[in-house]
Amino acid sequence: MEIEDWRKQIDAMDEQIVELISKRAQAAKQIGLLKRETTLPVYEPQRERDVFEHVKRINPGPLSNAEMMDVYERLIDVMRTLQRRDM
Amino acid sequence: MEIEDWRKQIDAMDEQIVELISKRAQAAKQIGLLKRETTLPVYEPQRERDVFEHVKRINPGPLSNAEMMDVYERLIDVMRTLQRRDM
Repeated sequence: MEIEDWRKQIDAMDEQIVELISKRAQAAKQIGLLKRETTLPVYEPQRERDVFEHVKRINPGPLSNAEMMDVYERLIDVMRTLQRRDM
Repeated sequence: MEIEDWRKQIDAMDEQIVELISKRAQAAKQIGLLKRETTLPVYEPQRERDVFEHVKRINPGPLSNAEMMDVYERLIDVMRTLQRRDM
């Protein structure tokens, strides 16, 4: 395959990744609303650790766990901001 | 749905997200190898701009484009590192 063919595949994968991140954000938003009703804190360090451990356990490569964590830490940051902003 | 139900859904989505990011990384690795053969540079700013524009165009929310870009900039950073490291 040529570079252009790989890029078409990457563009198609980006569409799926953006869709999944958006669905994940919708779910995080629902959790944010439930936390408000129950006065649970937005920041739950144990849950975040569990998410990171899960991601490391299922990471098949070629990214190292440290690289996958770089992406996921940013993702979780953004989700936390979403739960905090006016909904 | 309770918080625990949403979290189960999020865990399932994380499995799909990690799988897709890994497939995207495999494709980026192949492009990295092709670039070496053809002596194309790893850093191609126009291609990166095109990827970001594509992601913004298809972003359905609830994340703002700025939030989605926060995640994607990190993702592209990690992909570039992968293309540079010894393969």
